[in-house]
Amino acid sequence: MNRGSLNIVGLGPGKDNLLTQEAKDVLLKATDIVGYKTYVRRVEIRPGLTLHASDNRVEVERATHALDLAHKGAHVVVVSSGDPGVFAMASAVFEALEYGKPEWKQIGISVLPGITAMLAASARLGAPLGHDFCAINLSDNLKPFSVIERRVELALEADFAMAFYNPRSKSRPNQFGRILEILRERAGEDRLISFARAVSTKEERLTTVPVREATAEMADMRTMVIVGSSQTRSIDGTSFIYTPRFLGKREGQVE
Amino acid sequence: MNRGSLNIVGLGPGKDNLLTQEAKDVLLKATDIVGYKTYVRRVEIRPGLTLHASDNRVEVERATHALDLAHKGAHVVVVSSGDPGVFAMASAVFEALEYGKPEWKQIGISVLPGITAMLAASARLGAPLGHDFCAINLSDNLKPFSVIERRVELALEADFAMAFYNPRSKSRPNQFGRILEILRERAGEDRLISFARAVSTKEERLTTVPVREATAEMADMRTMVIVGSSQTRSIDGTSFIYTPRFLGKREGQVE
Repeated sequence: MNRGSLNIVGLGPGKDNLLTQEAKDVLLKATDIVGYKTYVRRVEIRPGLTLHASDNRVEVERATHALDLAHKGAHVVVVSSGDPGVFAMASAVFEALEYGKPEWKQIGISVLPGITAMLAASARLGAPLGHDFCAINLSDNLKPFSVIERRVELALEADFAMAFYNPRSKSRPNQFGRILEILRERAGEDRLISFARAVSTKEERLTTVPVREATAEMADMRTMVIVGSSQTRSIDGTSFIYTPRFLGKREGQVE
Repeated sequence: MNRGSLNIVGLGPGKDNLLTQEAKDVLLKATDIVGYKTYVRRVEIRPGLTLHASDNRVEVERATHALDLAHKGAHVVVVSSGDPGVFAMASAVFEALEYGKPEWKQIGISVLPGITAMLAASARLGAPLGHDFCAINLSDNLKPFSVIERRVELALEADFAMAFYNPRSKSRPNQFGRILEILRERAGEDRLISFARAVSTKEERLTTVPVREATAEMADMRTMVIVGSSQTRSIDGTSFIYTPRFLGKREGQVE
């Protein structure tokens, strides 16, 4: 009996050369690609490959469809951008698996990691996530906004650098402004904040400012926002920012 | 004048097919590889390539050496495992750059992202980092242990899933036990904790238990520890754990 397979793959932030070989190999063996249309579009078409593109915000339906195809014998790849385990399709597939048909538990399911947006952004900026940090999805589609505010406050208290996914969209243009207020009140006006838009694509745009100069309009759904910890520094004479590995001040060493 | 170049590259968690093409391309053009000996060993040797392997805990000296070579015209690749921006060499290079010779600021420096250990581990476990999470380095080499304890407490209060890098070593065998105590006291005995050792290598070993069954001996320096949030679940009849994208309970959808 051929139960097929289900691979949940991260396509990375955009540029093809940020895919892993593992992800490329699995895409070449797939019979069916399932995903949000923007990501399905990134997969090279070829004879024998069926593309199943869906709209945004139907993650569980999409996952259910993928499991059903795999159970019928297809070699299915569910595509996400970035890493599939970070605010992407892996959780949706496991949710569908847990509540779905018992026979789906026989499907061979693998998650293949990818370069998630915050690490692509961090690399382009320098090393702002070089010390302890957290990742928070600012969308309140799936959790109350009050929880988001509280998490940002606690993360500031812990002095984590922060990576914000989905900072702002047309349907919630003002909440990110509230997050900026919290940052200004609790982290101070000089805290560094970076806006990394469409990293690794032709539309890439990188901006780092002290939070006093940040406005909500600097972010959209293609923007990764990275907030430094109290230790995050910019390097004079370069565009780089970084968070030191150590806590507190030290003198640098020169040969 | 040839100032050379400096690329700071993540080799991923271990398996060669988890490298990006971007990283492979840069390694092929390098004249000099600089890094901790364990990671330098992973680079294929060839004529014209000089390997500079160093011991652990000399990150700034190593970074200084790399900058000096690049300034003299070499095409240097500094190698880290995982992602170079997460508890790895990128911060050390920027630290050396900030406090080093002014002329080093003319070197073309790039950070190339890689698959960091927590995302490789998360993928093998299912999707434990599928909701908001944090990454904490448990080593107190570069920060006081009291700061680490406080950060774990605040992360629990924020209900982040947590990824612990460097949970335990021969020189600090007992601190991780203290972290487990905090987890049991504040998160409860049933909180899921996973130990993912040497992910993607032949020595890979994955274990998930409720925290009441966790002992310090389950971790070593090759282990990534992932602690679930209050919402993280295991799926009956499978080895997968995941953290739902939404907050609170819901009924699953089946076609």
